[in-house]
Amino acid sequence: MRYAPTDSPVFTLTTGPVDAYPAVLRGLAAPVLYDYDPAFQATYQRVCEKLQPIVKSETVPLLLQGEPILGLEAAAASAIGKDDVVLNLVSGVYAKGFEGWAARNGAKVLELAVPYDEVIDPADVAAMLKQHPEVTVVAACHHDTPSGTINPVGEIGAIVQAHGALFLVDAVSSFGGMAIDAASANADFFITGPNKCLGCPPALSILGLSRKAWAKMKATAEAPRASILSILDWEDAWKSSEPFPFTPSVAEINGLEAAIDLYVSEGPENVWARHALTAKACRAGMQAMGLALWPKSEGFASPTATAVRTPDGIDEAALRAEVRARYGVVLSSGRGETLGRLTRIGHMGPTAQPLYALVAVAAYGGALTALGHSVDIGTGTAAVLAAIDAS
Amino acid sequence: MRYAPTDSPVFTLTTGPVDAYPAVLRGLAAPVLYDYDPAFQATYQRVCEKLQPIVKSETVPLLLQGEPILGLEAAAASAIGKDDVVLNLVSGVYAKGFEGWAARNGAKVLELAVPYDEVIDPADVAAMLKQHPEVTVVAACHHDTPSGTINPVGEIGAIVQAHGALFLVDAVSSFGGMAIDAASANADFFITGPNKCLGCPPALSILGLSRKAWAKMKATAEAPRASILSILDWEDAWKSSEPFPFTPSVAEINGLEAAIDLYVSEGPENVWARHALTAKACRAGMQAMGLALWPKSEGFASPTATAVRTPDGIDEAALRAEVRARYGVVLSSGRGETLGRLTRIGHMGPTAQPLYALVAVAAYGGALTALGHSVDIGTGTAAVLAAIDAS
Amino acid sequence: MRYAPTDSPVFTLTTGPVDAYPAVLRGLAAPVLYDYDPAFQATYQRVCEKLQPIVKSETVPLLLQGEPILGLEAAAASAIGKDDVVLNLVSGVYAKGFEGWAARNGAKVLELAVPYDEVIDPADVAAMLKQHPEVTVVAACHHDTPSGTINPVGEIGAIVQAHGALFLVDAVSSFGGMAIDAASANADFFITGPNKCLGCPPALSILGLSRKAWAKMKATAEAPRASILSILDWEDAWKSSEPFPFTPSVAEINGLEAAIDLYVSEGPENVWARHALTAKACRAGMQAMGLALWPKSEGFASPTATAVRTPDGIDEAALRAEVRARYGVVLSSGRGETLGRLTRIGHMGPTAQPLYALVAVAAYGGALTALGHSVDIGTGTAAVLAAIDAS
Amino acid sequence: MRYAPTDSPVFTLTTGPVDAYPAVLRGLAAPVLYDYDPAFQATYQRVCEKLQPIVKSETVPLLLQGEPILGLEAAAASAIGKDDVVLNLVSGVYAKGFEGWAARNGAKVLELAVPYDEVIDPADVAAMLKQHPEVTVVAACHHDTPSGTINPVGEIGAIVQAHGALFLVDAVSSFGGMAIDAASANADFFITGPNKCLGCPPALSILGLSRKAWAKMKATAEAPRASILSILDWEDAWKSSEPFPFTPSVAEINGLEAAIDLYVSEGPENVWARHALTAKACRAGMQAMGLALWPKSEGFASPTATAVRTPDGIDEAALRAEVRARYGVVLSSGRGETLGRLTRIGHMGPTAQPLYALVAVAAYGGALTALGHSVDIGTGTAAVLAAIDAS
Repeated sequence: MRYAPTDSPVFTLTTGPVDAYPAVLRGLAAPVLYDYDPAFQATYQRVCEKLQPIVKSETVPLLLQGEPILGLEAAAASAIGKDDVVLNLVSGVYAKGFEGWAARNGAKVLELAVPYDEVIDPADVAAMLKQHPEVTVVAACHHDTPSGTINPVGEIGAIVQAHGALFLVDAVSSFGGMAIDAASANADFFITGPNKCLGCPPALSILGLSRKAWAKMKATAEAPRASILSILDWEDAWKSSEPFPFTPSVAEINGLEAAIDLYVSEGPENVWARHALTAKACRAGMQAMGLALWPKSEGFASPTATAVRTPDGIDEAALRAEVRARYGVVLSSGRGETLGRLTRIGHMGPTAQPLYALVAVAAYGGALTALGHSVDIGTGTAAVLAAIDAS
Repeated sequence: MRYAPTDSPVFTLTTGPVDAYPAVLRGLAAPVLYDYDPAFQATYQRVCEKLQPIVKSETVPLLLQGEPILGLEAAAASAIGKDDVVLNLVSGVYAKGFEGWAARNGAKVLELAVPYDEVIDPADVAAMLKQHPEVTVVAACHHDTPSGTINPVGEIGAIVQAHGALFLVDAVSSFGGMAIDAASANADFFITGPNKCLGCPPALSILGLSRKAWAKMKATAEAPRASILSILDWEDAWKSSEPFPFTPSVAEINGLEAAIDLYVSEGPENVWARHALTAKACRAGMQAMGLALWPKSEGFASPTATAVRTPDGIDEAALRAEVRARYGVVLSSGRGETLGRLTRIGHMGPTAQPLYALVAVAAYGGALTALGHSVDIGTGTAAVLAAIDAS
Repeated sequence: MRYAPTDSPVFTLTTGPVDAYPAVLRGLAAPVLYDYDPAFQATYQRVCEKLQPIVKSETVPLLLQGEPILGLEAAAASAIGKDDVVLNLVSGVYAKGFEGWAARNGAKVLELAVPYDEVIDPADVAAMLKQHPEVTVVAACHHDTPSGTINPVGEIGAIVQAHGALFLVDAVSSFGGMAIDAASANADFFITGPNKCLGCPPALSILGLSRKAWAKMKATAEAPRASILSILDWEDAWKSSEPFPFTPSVAEINGLEAAIDLYVSEGPENVWARHALTAKACRAGMQAMGLALWPKSEGFASPTATAVRTPDGIDEAALRAEVRARYGVVLSSGRGETLGRLTRIGHMGPTAQPLYALVAVAAYGGALTALGHSVDIGTGTAAVLAAIDAS
Repeated sequence: MRYAPTDSPVFTLTTGPVDAYPAVLRGLAAPVLYDYDPAFQATYQRVCEKLQPIVKSETVPLLLQGEPILGLEAAAASAIGKDDVVLNLVSGVYAKGFEGWAARNGAKVLELAVPYDEVIDPADVAAMLKQHPEVTVVAACHHDTPSGTINPVGEIGAIVQAHGALFLVDAVSSFGGMAIDAASANADFFITGPNKCLGCPPALSILGLSRKAWAKMKATAEAPRASILSILDWEDAWKSSEPFPFTPSVAEINGLEAAIDLYVSEGPENVWARHALTAKACRAGMQAMGLALWPKSEGFASPTATAVRTPDGIDEAALRAEVRARYGVVLSSGRGETLGRLTRIGHMGPTAQPLYALVAVAAYGGALTALGHSVDIGTGTAAVLAAIDAS
């Protein structure tokens, strides 16, 4: 029995989009209200206000009407002017990708880079900033998803704040799945979205902004206005009494409210615990089958995605295709520099349940074996169970 | 009995967002697939291909991941370079608003304007182009929603094409509700979305592009790349074999497919007929109550929205608030120059059913009377019925 | 423009099934849990317990897994034995229909009947019971839907209780739409369902039972066991610790919970008020068009359905067909003896909003006129508005 | 990490209710039409007619408005009169349970019984019928779910037909998951439902009836009329031109249509193949862990449910509770005589995907080990994979 490429998959264990929680899907199906209807304006304000205690930003979180790549591009466009000097901390493909946006208004961009299977050392950031007192903005990617690694943004943020620069953090694929928020990251721009660990579809950005971030944007001449890239246009839009710059994505806002309610009702700590355990079990299973994690140290492996190095001689795309055809399981590839070198298993939102690690390990192992790289699936799955049972 | 502002409305008869068709709401609730899953990539291609026969564009319609204001801004950014000369045809607030985008890359912008209760005369366009052979791009708004007026874009487009300029048409709030498409508009950029007459929530743009449009964007140095504003990045994304520049709005794509299927299954001509009849009945009812339409001539009043002049001495915002509080009906205000001067009743998608005109006329008339401007509701509603019965 | 019989209707203004509230439809789409899963058993108990304060029964309300006709048949089968003498109070088709079930186990059935456009006089019940001290069970229909009339069950119930008989009340199409419950009806069997004024689809019965009712069923030898008709089998099934006699209708239970939550959150008094006003406005409009209500006195016309006498010479079925074809509005016919003699407009759950009366009056009037019985629609609709505005 | 009893389960791998297919859940959320609306009557007819080619009954399949236990009780009540002699073939709890219904109208009931881990031998039926020429009705349970065993109803049916008796088959939990239908079972009453292998929630019965079945019911004086137990009342209800005896479960009908469309579009053979493979993989895994199946021979183990004998000394209820608490997996117990002696894993509808066998085997093995009966999970899971890979 083989699954055809257009057959519905049985398990989507990707790094996002992941399937949405059932309650989120039902939220998406709620009646679509007129954006200026007071009932919808009240909903919009309520959703933004519900986000604040979980995002822990100084100001009410701001929504942009596009998946988080919009939040990242808009933040760069709004916060970084031609006179800024940006220090871009690069430990992976996504951080590297930020460089182009950082430079869009003409700013100078410095880089502190490490190999993509390592993470940034806060001491290096401190040293770099000492050497470059002119740096005004530091950008970091908390979870560089294509590597499955977690950078110590809290420590880095403290250094950045002491330096007096603006700290911009991409927390798209970690927020909601582990203990990270604008406050603990010491971030001025905490950019994330509901489409990873909160279990929504992709279509919105969430920005947790400090007062310093707002001041900087207002002082940045290049900050977009009357554009989908504008953050400033949306400053007061969360208030039910104020207009929207343009029509918000009503259905997605409804879905987001369902996701927040679920998250708060389950309890963030509980949500994080199941993400962590799923990742731990997944790593245990993969390693028990003799496979290597991509991150050099398990200490900084993400609790929301497990990146497994592709064994030599294996075509990674063919491997994922086999996983899907044979078992109906969808996994994620690497991106850019990591493409072809690793496979990623997402542990995000509804799929952050320990037994999904079992599914992933068995399917990955089975397909690998089918492609000629034999692994002992029994050992792998037993290790998954042992990790779960030890919790 | 009064409806509180946060009570759910009973009827949303706005110019968009309107409520989505039930089948679209269910489409939004479909499982969220990974964007690179072949099953989703096949869906994405299928949706784009299903759009072509209804958009009637030379190339496969392109989706952008934001409501149509993104489509408009992106088209301007991609197609209009600093050396272009744009003729902006202004008969309303939305057309006027395009000016800023037209000029963003430094192009010169000429304007042909008429009062906002009139429409553009093709002969004036011809004269203007004769006078300005340097014009390279002409922009028009088919249905300038804040006025409820329909411009003769087909005739204008023929003139523009003969002139050799690029024709860019905003058909956001008319497409799907009347006989308009990229071919009949002679448009190179036919910019619309599913969130008006197709009955979807706001979150996507649909662009019907000519081969000339593609050539122009490729020749425009300023055309965005690696940006949410990029159209070029998405050129091949509709093909199931090609990557997406960034994650598409999966749930909204699912909803859109349901909308297209409904539209095709009902038959576009039948859909248009109920839009036209609803508008006609609405106009008849309003006029029978002694009220004036905003458009100077009923001949160019939109079949997808009826704009009614606010009687002297009436506070339009208070009037809409009364309509909602008293009857649970939500209507739209004017925008910009028309704000406070007219009220709009949308006839779009699921609300383009003749009997909704009855609801709108009675609720509007009842609230007007309550605010001191007495109208004869019986005469108004009888006129609505008579219009329906005459069809 | 005509709606084909298989086109989706625009307005379903029937006496049930009515369309469900959007939140109920989303509730139906919740994941289906195993009935013995503790999470579902907890849901089932919670739903039953949430019903008690609104049904106001002595014991926790009981759900049967079929639309309320099951509740009625099961109550008769369980409570009435061959030695019972039943007084059946007949003011309409539904009450008359109960006779067969009352007699199923061999009981003697007496009848107190009035014409179907009148209601039962409590004094007549008192007299009848005095004359027939042997009566052990009295059955009444609160809202005999095919007549649109409301019987004074509270007063009747007090008389029945004083007599010492069991009082069985069919409150299927009134509960949730007006002030009626097991306590105020003095009912031992208060039989209703969620598919009328609570705005659910048809599939469940709700029984509010007194302790006396339970005692009587246990003493009735004929009471079904191991049957879908058994009430006794379900006695403890609401407790999360107890088994179900057979699988409950999981999805419908989920929908019901959403309906209860809506009802409680809106506030029963508010819900009743909009039912009452919708009915009042509907009656006003119909009468203003010179039409007669079916109930002899407006004093006992139902707030949840308006029955309009069909004018002489009009084919009632053709009239409803015309209402649907011309306007997309679905209305209900009479049943049995009232079939062909009246048309019913439901005001139930989501359609109990005053402006729906406008839709009904106009559509009914328009179709009537089209069939040759001219009425003044303007006068009708103005009367609807006047009734709403006077509230 | 432990799942609380009221936490949502992660996997519902029961013998029904199982979770519905996503498309079915969305079908349940479709607008609720009035049952007498011609659009709904057309839907009802279409659903019944779509069932015929898959149920393969002589007459258009009939729907009853309650889960299949209603179908079974109604069939017994309608087809078996006091003068009938019934041969009840008993290989499990459900078949035994039919005895009470078979006898309800006073018929004589003979029994051919085997131990509950065996199945009926057609030769024994032939012998019994030879010995008892007076038998007029034979009843069999195709898949006696509490045992997970499949009876050879096709062969038995041929013998019954040759004898001239009526053959009544309970195919509730096998239909849709394997090659079984009214024709191949030689059944006069083929009683099933959409809530097992078709992936709907429980709330409807499907009856495939032969012309002989209809004749017998019409000749049976005791056959219920004007009752929820009546089949005869529904004879013509499938026709869009005919009335319903009472209101059908509109939402469930909508869900059923979605299920049928899925089933036909996937292809019944493909659906059966994944049921069979899931069961085979599950059996392989369980046996590899040294556990015994409940069925004496794997040859008659069901492809839609795997029954595993509970190892000596293990409390089966505690075992299932541990499976749920530890892994979030819900399994089914035995029933009646098999309660406490086996655990059942369902392979039905959406859960009939081979990798679910992996989940079940690991979770069952893990919990068993936790309770002190150590098994080798690695060996079990490897056997599951091997079975899948061999397919």
